[in-house]
Parts: sequence; structure tokens; C-alpha cells
Amino acid sequence: MAIVGATGLVGRTMLDVLDEMDVPIDSLALYASERSAGTMLEFRGTTLTVQKLNEHSFDAIDIALFSAGGVLSRAYAPIAVKAGCTVIDNSSAFRMEPNVPLVVPEVNPDDAMNHHGIIANPNCSTIQLVLALEPIRKRFGLNRLILSTYQSVSGAGQKGIDQLHDELQGIEPQERISPHPLAFNTVFHNRIHEERGASTEEEIKMRREIRRIFSMPDLPIAVTCVRIPTTGGHAESVYAELDAHWTIDDIHECLSDIPGLTIIDDSQNDAFPTPISVAGNNNVFVGRIRKDEDHPQGLMIWVVADNLRKGAATNAVQIAELLMKKNS
Amino acid sequence: MAIVGATGLVGRTMLDVLDEMDVPIDSLALYASERSAGTMLEFRGTTLTVQKLNEHSFDAIDIALFSAGGVLSRAYAPIAVKAGCTVIDNSSAFRMEPNVPLVVPEVNPDDAMNHHGIIANPNCSTIQLVLALEPIRKRFGLNRLILSTYQSVSGAGQKGIDQLHDELQGIEPQERISPHPLAFNTVFHNRIHEERGASTEEEIKMRREIRRIFSMPDLPIAVTCVRIPTTGGHAESVYAELDAHWTIDDIHECLSDIPGLTIIDDSQNDAFPTPISVAGNNNVFVGRIRKDEDHPQGLMIWVVADNLRKGAATNAVQIAELLMKKNS
Repeated sequence: MAIVGATGLVGRTMLDVLDEMDVPIDSLALYASERSAGTMLEFRGTTLTVQKLNEHSFDAIDIALFSAGGVLSRAYAPIAVKAGCTVIDNSSAFRMEPNVPLVVPEVNPDDAMNHHGIIANPNCSTIQLVLALEPIRKRFGLNRLILSTYQSVSGAGQKGIDQLHDELQGIEPQERISPHPLAFNTVFHNRIHEERGASTEEEIKMRREIRRIFSMPDLPIAVTCVRIPTTGGHAESVYAELDAHWTIDDIHECLSDIPGLTIIDDSQNDAFPTPISVAGNNNVFVGRIRKDEDHPQGLMIWVVADNLRKGAATNAVQIAELLMKKNS
Repeated sequence: MAIVGATGLVGRTMLDVLDEMDVPIDSLALYASERSAGTMLEFRGTTLTVQKLNEHSFDAIDIALFSAGGVLSRAYAPIAVKAGCTVIDNSSAFRMEPNVPLVVPEVNPDDAMNHHGIIANPNCSTIQLVLALEPIRKRFGLNRLILSTYQSVSGAGQKGIDQLHDELQGIEPQERISPHPLAFNTVFHNRIHEERGASTEEEIKMRREIRRIFSMPDLPIAVTCVRIPTTGGHAESVYAELDAHWTIDDIHECLSDIPGLTIIDDSQNDAFPTPISVAGNNNVFVGRIRKDEDHPQGLMIWVVADNLRKGAATNAVQIAELLMKKNS
């Protein structure tokens, strides 16, 4: 196995998750760009040296987890595939390509089996949303989504965390993920279109990816993606219109005993999931399960997950496990 | 004139706003609870001593701005009214009483004239929302709202700011507005019902108050209110279904030249309102004006305002100005 982008926030979390989940690995190669090559990382008691990525990096690799950005994925994933390696790619480079499955193992594991060398890991905000909604969608139907996100600055990698922490300490950040301050503030992701009324890249991704994973190409989805000064996880205010009749107890029952999902919704004890309470956990958490008093099909839920774990590293490792089970 | 709760965050902001707006005041009495009595505050070059509130505090007062919590308002507003004083109350104590007008001067100024001694200042989250939506509602009609808020911890007063700052400095807070951490986190307001599926008090207030100010008692409104680690202002992700056909340019035009409202929505320069950019300003700011690609009547906007200013002190002072103009 190999990790490409091993020194990044997601790459390092992949190392942790591979270890914690006891994934059977014969050998692990760690790759990064020239700047990070030479870095030493611990894995299962051994010190591994991060190597510079090159055209022969995948000659003896079965599965490569890519998390080094879209440019590197586009350049090196085809080389890896040609060498016989299966790529699980955390960038957005291939997510909308028809012959690249976009997979959340709890939701559409079968799609992973129809790959042609590359499997895409969805956007962090997408993963936690589809995992929380899938049991509800299967049982009660889904015909509309209106979403507002509360995203951790770690979604932009170490740079986002550094900008926030520098600002909180009164230091001028060396690099910025936003021209606006992050501390005590809310900002939006980059826009790819400059015309009036355009959505951001993050908003466009969420809408496309949810539709693709649910195989509902016409599902109406309105998304507003916001970064807030948190670091532990992404939260989402989810408004979903369902088809069938349902009660609050039905939703609680429907979300119980779902692998990878935890309900925290105890009004008496002021209990709900928060970015801090989910940090370091691999599950997706759901709370504040409510019914719209003015629209009986309108369900409101609050979905929180560690964006570096289930939103990225954990989901990628779980896809790798799916492939290993198939091949064993 | 008098300010009740003069030493609180909103009370102090009222002093600033009265001065900045050049409100003509013969004399200004400052009141607070016993604990804060004796505090010295500056106003227009004079030092005023905060006095302990008592049953004769309003004997020579024409207008009293109350911002000392619902319990004090319920106890002392009737005493003030009996003494011939008009009360502008920032608490939620009287907001839903039929004979107490609930007023945002730019939206329903005429309602202020039909008071019986008390005029209620709406909830901070309500004020900025109705101000931003009113021009759109008047021109294109409004038939549904789905709202998610990003609220400053200053909404809970100085205690909220102190808890956040203490946590950021690694100090155990002496008082807490939430059992959950505020730093790097998201929390909800208190719930008043303990059953499953209940909304918080803040969510219930917003729905009721928006309906009342718009005189639309059946307007469908779904609200999720969230506190985030900001201090400068509240932000709101607003999804509104309108009646008539409209374009993005129509909305820009409709919101231009509206008193108290500023549009910041320049994609080319990554410009949108943020809690930090609006702090200290009396206006409500609107950005990210978008159309739901899947629902042609669905309008998405981002509304931000300083919750201590237009969300509280500024709106109360503007109501006082309305009364003064009427009486002059």
C-alpha cells in the first residue's frame, strides 16, 4: 500500500486510521512532493521516510491512497493505474468521471467493485451528509434538500489551521486560505465563476456528489457552504423533504444501529453533537432531529463528523478495506 | 430618557448609539441592578453614575430603553408606564403580547404609533432578517422561509464573550452560557421543552416574531439557530421562496437604496459580509445573492449584522427617534 501526500493533514490521519483499524498491510510506502520528501513518520513502531513521488513509485504497490491535491492526482493516478495499482483518490479530480465510482462504503459499497483503477473519495461535507441521510432516504424517500454547512478551517489543510491559530495569537499569518480573517469570523470557499449569483466550488461539488452517490440526478439541492473558526469537524444544518409519512420516533429508530452513525439527541441533558465532541472519532453524528411544524414532510437534522476522519482518511481506508475483502 | 441595564453589553452600546446618532436628550438616567449600581459611565463628555433601579426611577422620564432581561422588564416596565413613561423593551417579555407593538423602524414604523406604553424590540436574529427581506417580500411576495443562523456568543451578553475568551486562553471560565465549550465549537441555545424534537427558545422566538412583524401569521418558517465562536455579529443563511418571477439583478436592484441596508456581493473581489466586517456598523448587510438552480422561486441570501447594534441597541434607539418625531 502507498499514501501519496503522506505529510498532509489527511495523509497523517490515514496513517493513524490504518493503524487503529488494524488494516493488514505488507508494506507501506509514503510519498509526497519534493518539499516534504525526507520527512520521517512513525507507523506501527517503524520509522518510515517519505519519498519523492516519481514515475516508478507504484511499480510494486497494490492500493494507493492519494491525498495530495487534484493536480498531483491528475498527473500520477493514471501512472499508478498503468502499473497495476488501484487508486483511492481524495481529490476532486475524478469525482464526476462516469467510469470512476464515487463511494461511501456504508451507502454504495457495490459501486466500488465497478472501478477501472480509480475510486474517488467524496468531498468531506458530502460523505457525512449521505451517510446520515441514506437510511432515511431508503425508508421514507427523499425529494428535496436545503443545506447550510458549518465547516472547519482544517478543510483547507494545515494552512487553514495555521491561519486561524496565528490570528488568535495576534501573529500575521504567513499564508492565507482566505483574504478575510478566519478568527471570530465566517468566510466562504473560493468561487469558480465570477458572475453574479454564482455558487462556490464547494457548493457545486456537494450538490453534484450527493446526486451521484444517491443515483438521483435530478434531486433538488440548495447548498450554502460556510467556513467557521472550528478545527475538529464539519457541522451541517440539514433540511430534507421526505416522501412518506414519518414521526420523530421513526427517524430515531431508522438511524439506530446503522454502522458508522451515532445519534446524540437528548434534550433533557442538553446533548447534541459538536465539532469538539466528534473530533478524532470515525463516526458521523446526528442530533437535533426535528419536524418542520409548517411542512409535515420537512425533516431537520444536525449532522457532525470529523472532516479529516470520516470526511477523508477514514472513508478512504474503508474503501481500501472493501477492495481487500473482495480480493481475499 | 433612561437606560435600564446600562452596564450590560447592549446598555453600553445604547449609550454609544445615542451619542453617535445625535439623539436630542435633555437628561439621561442610567439604571441597573444593585450589583452594578455605582458604576460610572461617560456620555457626551459627562460622567454619569449608574443608579439602582427603584419604584420611583421613572417619575421624570419620558422614554426608557430596557435591556436588563425579561424578569426586570416584567417587574418594572408596568411601573414605568404608570409613571407616564414609554418603554422600549429589548427583552422577550412582551414581544408576543397583542397590545405591545413589535417594531423594526424600516419595516413597520406605523405599528410603533399604536402602543399602550410598551414597544418591544425584536430578537437580534429577527431584526436583521426582516429588514433584509422586507423589500423583497413587498415586491415579489414571500411564501416560505428556511433559516440557519451563525450567531455571535455576544448574544448571551458579556458572559458569552468571557467564556469564549477564557477558553481561548486556556482559563477555566467562571461562568458559562453553555455546558459545552464555545471555542472552536458550535452550540445551540437553551431548549424550553424537554421532549424529543423540540426547538430551542431562540428558534421559537424567530419564527413567531418574523410572522408577527410581517403580519403573516401562517408563513411557513423552519429555523435552526446556532452559536459559533464569533463576537462581532450574527450571520444567517436564508432560503426564501418567493411568489413572483425574479432574477438576481432584480434582487440587487430591489435591495439598493434601502435605508439601513448594504449589499456586499462582488464575486470578482471575493467580497461578502462577515461578522468581523460588520462589527460596529448600524446597518444590515446582504451578500451571496443566489437563485436555487432546482427551484426557480428559491432565493438564497447571506444576511449579517452587528447583533448588539441593529440587533439590539440601534433598533431600540431608532424606535425612540420615531416616538420623538411623532411628539415633536
